[in-house]
Amino acid sequence: MRYVTITTDFGSPSASMKGVIWSRAPQAQIADLTWEIPPQDVYQAALHLDRHVFFYPSHSVHVVVVDPGVGTERRPIAALIKDQYFVVPDNGVLTRIFDRAQTEGWPVEVVHTNRPRYWMPEISDIFHGRDIFAPVGGHLAAGVELKELGEVIDDPVRIEIPYARKTDQGVEGEISIIYDYFGNIITNITREDLQGMNLDEVEVTLCGKTISGMVRTFGERPEGSLAALFDECGYLYVAVTNGSAAARLDPEVGDPVLVTPR
Amino acid sequence: MRYVTITTDFGSPSASMKGVIWSRAPQAQIADLTWEIPPQDVYQAALHLDRHVFFYPSHSVHVVVVDPGVGTERRPIAALIKDQYFVVPDNGVLTRIFDRAQTEGWPVEVVHTNRPRYWMPEISDIFHGRDIFAPVGGHLAAGVELKELGEVIDDPVRIEIPYARKTDQGVEGEISIIYDYFGNIITNITREDLQGMNLDEVEVTLCGKTISGMVRTFGERPEGSLAALFDECGYLYVAVTNGSAAARLDPEVGDPVLVTPR
Amino acid sequence: MRYVTITTDFGSPSASMKGVIWSRAPQAQIADLTWEIPPQDVYQAALHLDRHVFFYPSHSVHVVVVDPGVGTERRPIAALIKDQYFVVPDNGVLTRIFDRAQTEGWPVEVVHTNRPRYWMPEISDIFHGRDIFAPVGGHLAAGVELKELGEVIDDPVRIEIPYARKTDQGVEGEISIIYDYFGNIITNITREDLQGMNLDEVEVTLCGKTISGMVRTFGERPEGSLAALFDECGYLYVAVTNGSAAARLDPEVGDPVLVTPR
Repeated sequence: MRYVTITTDFGSPSASMKGVIWSRAPQAQIADLTWEIPPQDVYQAALHLDRHVFFYPSHSVHVVVVDPGVGTERRPIAALIKDQYFVVPDNGVLTRIFDRAQTEGWPVEVVHTNRPRYWMPEISDIFHGRDIFAPVGGHLAAGVELKELGEVIDDPVRIEIPYARKTDQGVEGEISIIYDYFGNIITNITREDLQGMNLDEVEVTLCGKTISGMVRTFGERPEGSLAALFDECGYLYVAVTNGSAAARLDPEVGDPVLVTPR
Repeated sequence: MRYVTITTDFGSPSASMKGVIWSRAPQAQIADLTWEIPPQDVYQAALHLDRHVFFYPSHSVHVVVVDPGVGTERRPIAALIKDQYFVVPDNGVLTRIFDRAQTEGWPVEVVHTNRPRYWMPEISDIFHGRDIFAPVGGHLAAGVELKELGEVIDDPVRIEIPYARKTDQGVEGEISIIYDYFGNIITNITREDLQGMNLDEVEVTLCGKTISGMVRTFGERPEGSLAALFDECGYLYVAVTNGSAAARLDPEVGDPVLVTPR
Repeated sequence: MRYVTITTDFGSPSASMKGVIWSRAPQAQIADLTWEIPPQDVYQAALHLDRHVFFYPSHSVHVVVVDPGVGTERRPIAALIKDQYFVVPDNGVLTRIFDRAQTEGWPVEVVHTNRPRYWMPEISDIFHGRDIFAPVGGHLAAGVELKELGEVIDDPVRIEIPYARKTDQGVEGEISIIYDYFGNIITNITREDLQGMNLDEVEVTLCGKTISGMVRTFGERPEGSLAALFDECGYLYVAVTNGSAAARLDPEVGDPVLVTPR
């Protein structure tokens, strides 16, 4: 229980949160999971967590500060899901992981971290990352039990997570993440969603373009052409070899993606 | 005495400084406080340090490389202020914290780190961050006493830090920091500066706009409207709910800000 | 053998690789060397490593994920060069350091890390950073011997590294790195290449401009003028005092640079 990650929409690393964590958990190793969640985008934060946290050692603590409701009645919560701890605003940012826990049969415990003795002595109205989430995360990393932090709750806020679904034509999903740097477009269609289809023979349609056949790696398409393949988390994504699919297709999160037999 | 932070204007993390620090303080935990100080902007670095360092554990070491005078007669210095160590160029970057120490009655010790045995064996003319500040910071983190590092001095360079002041009309301050990512505009006007005023009834004027009344959180203003509130360090700042005050007001650091009774 | 660095072209820190490393080397301290290598630019990654890794403690492990050949027959390799470990795709990214080892007479050992028991249990086709390089790096940091990781090889891939050369006129080199943030232009011409020349009297010609005389620091040229000096690694570079040489000269990596006596 010594690793702490920080996920924010700050645009740069949080300077004071690490100090607050180390002040409570002197042995903690701290990593920035990302500071590039689009401002106040709870859905993107939910997807990002799900893609990364389960690669961390047992009992790691994941602190999330994507918090449009700061200063309102929005609760601060903490959770233990499978073997990972989370300290987050109660705004639905754990929904994707709650869903996965249900599918996988993992244990889930959630508490309302409403005990000020685990917070900073003074709480600002606009930055609970520093004043509530970081100190609570530090206490967890130092070995405080989840249930010490507050009352157990069974009604954490959920957001709607769109999943792909089978239709008469094939599989219908949508764009879920756009990585501008490499220009890759991630969808919510998984390898499992396409089970039983001949992937060499499918057509992938999005943003008015159709790609014939999926490939295993970039190298199988000529430079500059669109390719559809599976990413490292098992989602169908679209890329341009040595180029940017995002620049080519002008995608938006939520745009429909269809996979049909040719 | 095991935590080291690094503050620079490099635009990205310093790759070699961490190695230099760990080579002298194998147990040190190292965090980037920021690498996004505007190039050679000693004043912004001075404000940034003051906002963050006192959240770190006692005896943390803060290394600063915002160093327009590198290679000139500018001295390298180290300081112990309250319970935090600093290793910096002697260019005024500690002024804001020296001022705070005076107000709070904290102890201050400063030395000229002029002993090459605590530096790298060879010193480049243009990067004392790697060759002087990082190794000195590493030695401090490893337990070397401040006074071992060089001669005590009592004349560190100071820059002018503008503070808000009371006038006949109300309180007059200026813009001190502009955060482009969220578009927030921080001023140098503190909660204390406004003591005795009815904050619901003040007018905040900057960049040709007047905002009526301060609020506690974003949520109290309709989306897209300007709001004036206190930030997590107690400074008055101006934001646009779900938007960018910086984009709206085209502010510059130093622009005047007035707070007057309505 | 407790420090691990990560060098990538991801545009932001790798979120899952640190978890994978800590799962195998719980005591490891991890630093991002950079995530800003231009996408798939093996040459720039090769230069970046050489400039930084030898400032790290003995037995540090440097993991590199600049990997245009991922999913092809490209081998994953690991190496011990002088006292530093490397875990990289076999695409030439170590060439600059192999060259330096030859010049300096350092020992070099390279293995093909082809033993899946040191990998993740499942390997994606497109992200060997998470699935092969990070776990292998973690095992090295945890004390596994290099030769345990795979078969020794003597034919790692090399790329062409351009070096400066003496000509009848003086010294002919080229632009090797462009740092956009500060606007500095680094060349491949070293201090040693210019030995015997009177640096006050040389002319440095690049991008259609000629600079008269080299200086030791920025301060020796008036604000806004071009200056030629040595960087912290001993390479000739060109900067504008309080400005951007890159914006002024519109340079490209590979553009010729000439140093001639005046």
